[in-house]
Amino acid sequence: MTARQVRALIRSGALDAPTAGMADGFMQANLAIIPKAYAADFLEFCYANPKPCPLLGVSRPGDVGIESVAEGLDIRTDVCGYRVFRDGLCTGRVNDLSKIWSDDLVTFVLGCSFSFEHALLHDGIPVRHIDCGCNVPMFKTSIPTVPRGRFSGPLVVSMRPFLPADAIRAICLSDHLPLAHGAPVHMGDHAKIGIADLQSPDYGDPVPVAADEIPVFWACGVTPQAVLERARLPFAITHDPGHMLIADIRNEDLCDVTTVMGHASVSF
Amino acid sequence: MTARQVRALIRSGALDAPTAGMADGFMQANLAIIPKAYAADFLEFCYANPKPCPLLGVSRPGDVGIESVAEGLDIRTDVCGYRVFRDGLCTGRVNDLSKIWSDDLVTFVLGCSFSFEHALLHDGIPVRHIDCGCNVPMFKTSIPTVPRGRFSGPLVVSMRPFLPADAIRAICLSDHLPLAHGAPVHMGDHAKIGIADLQSPDYGDPVPVAADEIPVFWACGVTPQAVLERARLPFAITHDPGHMLIADIRNEDLCDVTTVMGHASVSF
Repeated sequence: MTARQVRALIRSGALDAPTAGMADGFMQANLAIIPKAYAADFLEFCYANPKPCPLLGVSRPGDVGIESVAEGLDIRTDVCGYRVFRDGLCTGRVNDLSKIWSDDLVTFVLGCSFSFEHALLHDGIPVRHIDCGCNVPMFKTSIPTVPRGRFSGPLVVSMRPFLPADAIRAICLSDHLPLAHGAPVHMGDHAKIGIADLQSPDYGDPVPVAADEIPVFWACGVTPQAVLERARLPFAITHDPGHMLIADIRNEDLCDVTTVMGHASVSF
Repeated sequence: MTARQVRALIRSGALDAPTAGMADGFMQANLAIIPKAYAADFLEFCYANPKPCPLLGVSRPGDVGIESVAEGLDIRTDVCGYRVFRDGLCTGRVNDLSKIWSDDLVTFVLGCSFSFEHALLHDGIPVRHIDCGCNVPMFKTSIPTVPRGRFSGPLVVSMRPFLPADAIRAICLSDHLPLAHGAPVHMGDHAKIGIADLQSPDYGDPVPVAADEIPVFWACGVTPQAVLERARLPFAITHDPGHMLIADIRNEDLCDVTTVMGHASVSF
């Protein structure tokens, strides 16, 4: 199925499941929807932190579509799970934003590591958490993001262990995908970036790391979610983790691409 | 000075010194000159082992020039030191090949790590052996090259230690320079590639490696020299180590370039 066909199924209510592996070859994306009063600062935050927040698209206030990301998108219905936050606290999960939508809301679409993992698998490099059938382990670090406005907080990283030659290849492949978090930020000793225990992730699941493997750490799309929570906005919406927006952009078209936003002016 | 100006000085006899740092911004290259009877096999060997043997150019038998590498080149006089081998043994160093040149000889020009180190320094990444004022440490490994004809033998690697974030950046930068040996072949535990002692290099000088640094290993241009010695050709010439051929190719024009040989047919 194409990305658009999967989005149509989700919109119809016929599909409600984690999107990993769906619409093979199409890019999946993280979602942040916030009031326009905070949109300029959050846009600045994304530009200042391109590794955790690779910006794929931004809507005009109230617009439910972003044509450069997904043709015919209705962001209120085309993702199968959303989390709603009030004053920084998650108040629940919904399947449809129609009843809580307002002309005040701005949608941010951010790149996700699925595209990079797709490239690894395509190259024959095993990805531990996929082999284990679990979520990737993610950790808060001692590395700060670059603050903008009320948005700040620690970088969250995902960890994948590799044998040295595969680690080198994974670094090179991910460097070619800046919109899927790009090259890693660290490798080796986890204590150097403030991680106490590699087997106790802050998000996701622990995975085994063999003695001859190197743990490699990438900036993670959970960073902007944690930053949004910490900013305690009166109102915000994200995708439900694992339930991503499926974009029309093909993974192979992402190679060495640093923006798909074109020259559309964004004003809030 | 441009590459051509430095070559003219060398040809005139006014310059005889290691070429590191000369003609800043221009690519320097390894040299192998062998009888045409072995040229087809050695060409195959280079194609089969592009990391240690990145091919910049090949001459026609007897030709002293390779226009795609260096305008007006006379390979007999434009490198300031050559080593002459007979039956695999080095019989001495000469400054001029005119008296031993023959129409039977084919010149191979191979990429060198200077271009990659130039990119690292330009990016603000310290290179240990340069800071130490010594040669890069090089090691024979347990990794075999892909044999072709009488050409075979172990991969020789060079080692540079980095802090993790710099190692990631060095890997990405070198991956963009396939004609300067490309991305590394290994990092971390040296024993995994058959190196007994990191402080006892087979060529070059030892350098200190701090506890929080990762040793990173790149395929090295000494590999084809060692392979040529091992093949015990009746006659062969290489550059004197450190005394490189300076090409007209600018380092910045090497980015993501895998060949500068054009479509000239090579036959021996």
